[in-house]
Amino acid sequence: MFEEKISERSLATPPSFIRSILKATEQEQTISFAGGLPNPISFPQEAIKESTNRVIDTFGAKVFQYAATAGLLPLREYICNRLHTKYQMEIQPDDILITTGSQQALDLIGKVFINKGDVVALEKPGYLGAIQAFSQYQPDLHAITLEEDGMDINELEQVLKDKAPKFLYVIPNYQNPTGISYSDEKRNQVLSLVQQYSCILVEDDPYGELCFEGTPKGYISAKAPQGSILLGTFSKTVTPGMRLGYMIVCEEGLRKRLNTAKEAADLHSNIFSQYILWDYLSHNDIEVHVEKIRMLYKEQCATMLSAMKTYFPKNVSFTRPTGGMFLWATLPQEQSSLELFGRASKENVVFVPGNPFYTDGRDANTMRLNYTNSSCETITEGIRRLGQLMN
Amino acid sequence: MFEEKISERSLATPPSFIRSILKATEQEQTISFAGGLPNPISFPQEAIKESTNRVIDTFGAKVFQYAATAGLLPLREYICNRLHTKYQMEIQPDDILITTGSQQALDLIGKVFINKGDVVALEKPGYLGAIQAFSQYQPDLHAITLEEDGMDINELEQVLKDKAPKFLYVIPNYQNPTGISYSDEKRNQVLSLVQQYSCILVEDDPYGELCFEGTPKGYISAKAPQGSILLGTFSKTVTPGMRLGYMIVCEEGLRKRLNTAKEAADLHSNIFSQYILWDYLSHNDIEVHVEKIRMLYKEQCATMLSAMKTYFPKNVSFTRPTGGMFLWATLPQEQSSLELFGRASKENVVFVPGNPFYTDGRDANTMRLNYTNSSCETITEGIRRLGQLMN
Repeated sequence: MFEEKISERSLATPPSFIRSILKATEQEQTISFAGGLPNPISFPQEAIKESTNRVIDTFGAKVFQYAATAGLLPLREYICNRLHTKYQMEIQPDDILITTGSQQALDLIGKVFINKGDVVALEKPGYLGAIQAFSQYQPDLHAITLEEDGMDINELEQVLKDKAPKFLYVIPNYQNPTGISYSDEKRNQVLSLVQQYSCILVEDDPYGELCFEGTPKGYISAKAPQGSILLGTFSKTVTPGMRLGYMIVCEEGLRKRLNTAKEAADLHSNIFSQYILWDYLSHNDIEVHVEKIRMLYKEQCATMLSAMKTYFPKNVSFTRPTGGMFLWATLPQEQSSLELFGRASKENVVFVPGNPFYTDGRDANTMRLNYTNSSCETITEGIRRLGQLMN
Repeated sequence: MFEEKISERSLATPPSFIRSILKATEQEQTISFAGGLPNPISFPQEAIKESTNRVIDTFGAKVFQYAATAGLLPLREYICNRLHTKYQMEIQPDDILITTGSQQALDLIGKVFINKGDVVALEKPGYLGAIQAFSQYQPDLHAITLEEDGMDINELEQVLKDKAPKFLYVIPNYQNPTGISYSDEKRNQVLSLVQQYSCILVEDDPYGELCFEGTPKGYISAKAPQGSILLGTFSKTVTPGMRLGYMIVCEEGLRKRLNTAKEAADLHSNIFSQYILWDYLSHNDIEVHVEKIRMLYKEQCATMLSAMKTYFPKNVSFTRPTGGMFLWATLPQEQSSLELFGRASKENVVFVPGNPFYTDGRDANTMRLNYTNSSCETITEGIRRLGQLMN
């Protein structure tokens, strides 16, 4: 009796690859390059325990009660201060909405902007969680080719000119799925184009803190705060399990709409965890903590790249990230990564085939590999097995 | 540049009364009968601290990592066992999705079922959070008059017959906003009607545990698990701050759709808190804990009723709940509770005027009063002030 009652929206939402990935990682013997799982080194277990005890002792019932939709004020103040210190951004705590992970921010943005058929522009390949979140609202997605230094600017201008997308969604730092970062030049070009064509910029930055080579670049949206939305998260630096992210929305009218949408979605994000996270950030040196993560990921990335050089056939190319959690490999054109996935999972190695990162869901010769959640020995062994299967 | 880009969906979502209520409650001197705030007695602070330490020590990184969308298996097993023990319900852990509060369940249900213009039936007056969540998807809401013992059955049949709603949303135990409970007869009538007209039953039960007079009744949906969705929450018995609720969906195809919608919304609910909640429930006698809450709310409800009898004019009527957190007062027909709200808030007493509980948002002579979050002295004083303003 249900099937005929399902909404168009739900019928338009692609079945999820992430879900099967997470299920796959639940099996102990599998070598998983599939998920976007941070290394457990990033979870400050003892410090979180201390923070939990402290916030319960200090604030009592407040950490357990209903709370305001926008999120815990001291946590929002912390975010402001950090962005000011790191990037000289001039934002106020009121510009921030705490979200239930960045994924919720993507859903809220889709909800507040997209009418059926509206054009939305994003990267090709693009983040599958964003494609899934936006797809629910039945947009006309236009994906713009990602080059080694960022978006193809000509393609972007063509789409802005011909299609007038409501917003452009980008991950300029260590992009998911490719690991690519935008050059300064491309950042400036993207900014001037979205301004010229009055397109909203949605800049997502889950990985910016994970810079292990060179220096991190500031935000594109920092130069146009009124025309943009900036997303951040604590999932990669403290814990994804608490589902805490944020969105910076300087335009008040829009922020009210997003706030109402958030309220209808879950009233507010877990306030118990917001208190704990804020206390943890206030009582610990986050720079020291994140530096440990960076050093580990640098080693893991280098190990994966070196193993790929050794074991992958020469006709397989791949990106060389300077931060973040992923790299992107491209098989010869006629090969299917989905077919490889099937054979690899039998050998207990999994990755994400390129398909779900394309808006047309086509079969692809590309694949995303995560290097952050395996030991260097495991990385080498997994890449060795993949290399054998490729040959 | 934003306003013209806002979706129809967002434009259709009513501005929120709950938000201003929660803001009002942040002022210390205000007597608030407005929110749905549980009494802090329901927050087992020390036990939660113990559980946090224990789950971190026992499970380590797992409590901090990404997790499966459906939710923590042992928590879902706990819910199954409890519903089996209490109501002899035969459900499986796989029938359960953990949600980010019941509010998320309402949003997901709207998302998965409602196309613009689809008919949805609910109670008049109905829960404002549900009206808000569903409204985002632009349904044609049909509200069915609530009588002292549940829905007006003739009206319900008429709507089912003439309008074929996709689903019927009800809160049969201590309804929000009225505090009314459905009689056994009305429960049976609702069940046979939704079955006759193939309408999905969405049964929401945030308050069923808070029965302080008589014995709790089982679920309508327990008799038709394949044609219904049952919502539950830990917000009223353990803590709302952790935003943990659940939905029971026995039909597999529908559950997959809801799971995909949840994944697109926030990947999964806070797993750190799911572990803590499960550990708390496993290591403590929840019956003893909930009994304390029941006894307190019974006294608070009796105090409010007694104060209303003393201070309210005789032409103001009100419900007499046997459980839950709210009661519902009706002013003489020509009076406006919104006008009273304006005057009362100046006297530092707030409640929720009836308006947001009606789908047509009309001015109303009704009001919701919450009795669970004030001391008996404060309840009496607040009602005294309201009584003065009514005279």
